Amino acid sequence: MAENNGKTSALVGVDLGGTKILAGAFDSSLRLRGTAKLSTKAQRGPEDVIQRIARCVQDAVDEADLSLKDVRGVGLGVPGTVDGETGSVIFAPNLDWHEVPLQKQLEKLLGLPVFVENDCNSAALGVYVTELKSKPRHMLGIFVGTGIGAGLIVDGELYSGFGHAAGEIGHMVLEVDGPKCGCGNRGCFEALASRTAMFQQIKTAIKEGQKTVLTEMLKDLDEMRSGDLRKALRRGDKLVERVVEEAAQYMGVAVANLVNILNPQVVVLGGGVMEALADEMLGIVVEVAQDYAMAGAMEGVEIVTSLLGDNAGITGGAVLAKRMTK
Amino acid sequence: MAENNGKTSALVGVDLGGTKILAGAFDSSLRLRGTAKLSTKAQRGPEDVIQRIARCVQDAVDEADLSLKDVRGVGLGVPGTVDGETGSVIFAPNLDWHEVPLQKQLEKLLGLPVFVENDCNSAALGVYVTELKSKPRHMLGIFVGTGIGAGLIVDGELYSGFGHAAGEIGHMVLEVDGPKCGCGNRGCFEALASRTAMFQQIKTAIKEGQKTVLTEMLKDLDEMRSGDLRKALRRGDKLVERVVEEAAQYMGVAVANLVNILNPQVVVLGGGVMEALADEMLGIVVEVAQDYAMAGAMEGVEIVTSLLGDNAGITGGAVLAKRMTK
Repeated sequence: MAENNGKTSALVGVDLGGTKILAGAFDSSLRLRGTAKLSTKAQRGPEDVIQRIARCVQDAVDEADLSLKDVRGVGLGVPGTVDGETGSVIFAPNLDWHEVPLQKQLEKLLGLPVFVENDCNSAALGVYVTELKSKPRHMLGIFVGTGIGAGLIVDGELYSGFGHAAGEIGHMVLEVDGPKCGCGNRGCFEALASRTAMFQQIKTAIKEGQKTVLTEMLKDLDEMRSGDLRKALRRGDKLVERVVEEAAQYMGVAVANLVNILNPQVVVLGGGVMEALADEMLGIVVEVAQDYAMAGAMEGVEIVTSLLGDNAGITGGAVLAKRMTK
Repeated sequence: MAENNGKTSALVGVDLGGTKILAGAFDSSLRLRGTAKLSTKAQRGPEDVIQRIARCVQDAVDEADLSLKDVRGVGLGVPGTVDGETGSVIFAPNLDWHEVPLQKQLEKLLGLPVFVENDCNSAALGVYVTELKSKPRHMLGIFVGTGIGAGLIVDGELYSGFGHAAGEIGHMVLEVDGPKCGCGNRGCFEALASRTAMFQQIKTAIKEGQKTVLTEMLKDLDEMRSGDLRKALRRGDKLVERVVEEAAQYMGVAVANLVNILNPQVVVLGGGVMEALADEMLGIVVEVAQDYAMAGAMEGVEIVTSLLGDNAGITGGAVLAKRMTK
């Protein structure tokens, strides 16, 4: 591990996803100075991906007119379970990684201290420190995109559970015998309210002959993105309206469940779906959550959206690096 | 608050319920030496109930051949939200209590230090310290009786959330549009798997003409208890078998949800229903939970039943009193 000689102060955060790697170079006050993006190419195997991460870090640092010498530490969020002691990835299904010593290998390539966390934990930490200024004691960050996950802050610290696997809220069952989920079960939150679920519902409805402007807007429905739903809503599309509204209602039920269980001070909704559709969804989520949660558990609890969007992960990585190299 | 002069060492735990008050006198090693029980008489109002608690404490101490002078502290579990700082009961629906300064008033009556917690938190603490010897880092205690609640241990300490309202797992929705719950929503865990839910299902089935030995066993179905279900099962009753099996399946889904969210090291199932029906239910709960939980979140997680039964609450009260008077 490289020493922090007191002169270096920049921090790098990395968000490692199944399809892309995003890196951001931050100054010591956690202001973003430069970013870089590379495709993950997970099919090439861990060693190749780790080299791509190193390249992406260097690109982001270069974008910020800095060099690796200026960097105090690198924090990564990865889509899987992470051994907090060794920084090894225990299991990351989207990358098909099992027991990959990510921290060790990346430290060797970069010559810098590296810290690894679960991606939702990292994003929650980024939101907590930069958006909420570390003020609430307990916070729950819910991230809705292709999948749904969460990061939990208890007493100002990340809570990751016994086997570093807490926060798998996407597979909380909300409707026994509901629609099939990628995990094999039925009625999971993710199968009802993720981007994947909404797109699936829209495609099925189109096949059944329902009309939507999406078929005019897009050449290929497989290229649909959350932003397309927003555009369709603004054009008064009834099908998209129904699908987005139903997803928001399920999100409200899920938030109520989590507030009942955890009674956090603040619930933050983030991720690509919320970034694109917060205006349309947040009101419904809050209304349904208040309806379903116990009065005592919901009292004084704030439900807000994150403005960090796609940058939550890299921001959290930088926060992690800052905390760990203090 | 009375001083601990070093000579006193006994501890008293109290479980305040909607219908009865149970008190236990314990020695300093948390061995139960004597118990006492009184009906709550909640309709008479808080002042009367608090006097009854004081009397119940004195009775338990007397049962143990001790006097109040020998007692170091009293810990209470109450069915509601509690202000951890002042020991006041913020809200207890079953007692119709709002802002009752329980700790203050009981200290005045007994001349002893009094500590107040939520009843499920107290029961979880009792199980954690006496049954699990405080070994797991994170534990979830699930208590199934008339209602369903939970207590959560994080890093060896009770986690009670922002407004002391965490652990309301009974109102986690498992089936949107499921059966009506007492809270006004539909498909809550409590409406699917509590004693109340099981009894309701049995009564409905009888009205619909289904046969069960319960109608022979009991003069009045309203006097049905969890133990009667166990007896009916041993006599091969098909209706009771189906109802208990379905409740256990919902419990399995609920446990899976909670393991996915919290990834505790140990899940303990307690309360009157589990005490009476653990042999019949635990296997199903574990099987369904393993089926529904993510492999990573369930890995190494133990699901066990508490042997403390009705004494979990008073034991937790004694643990609380011991911890707070150290």
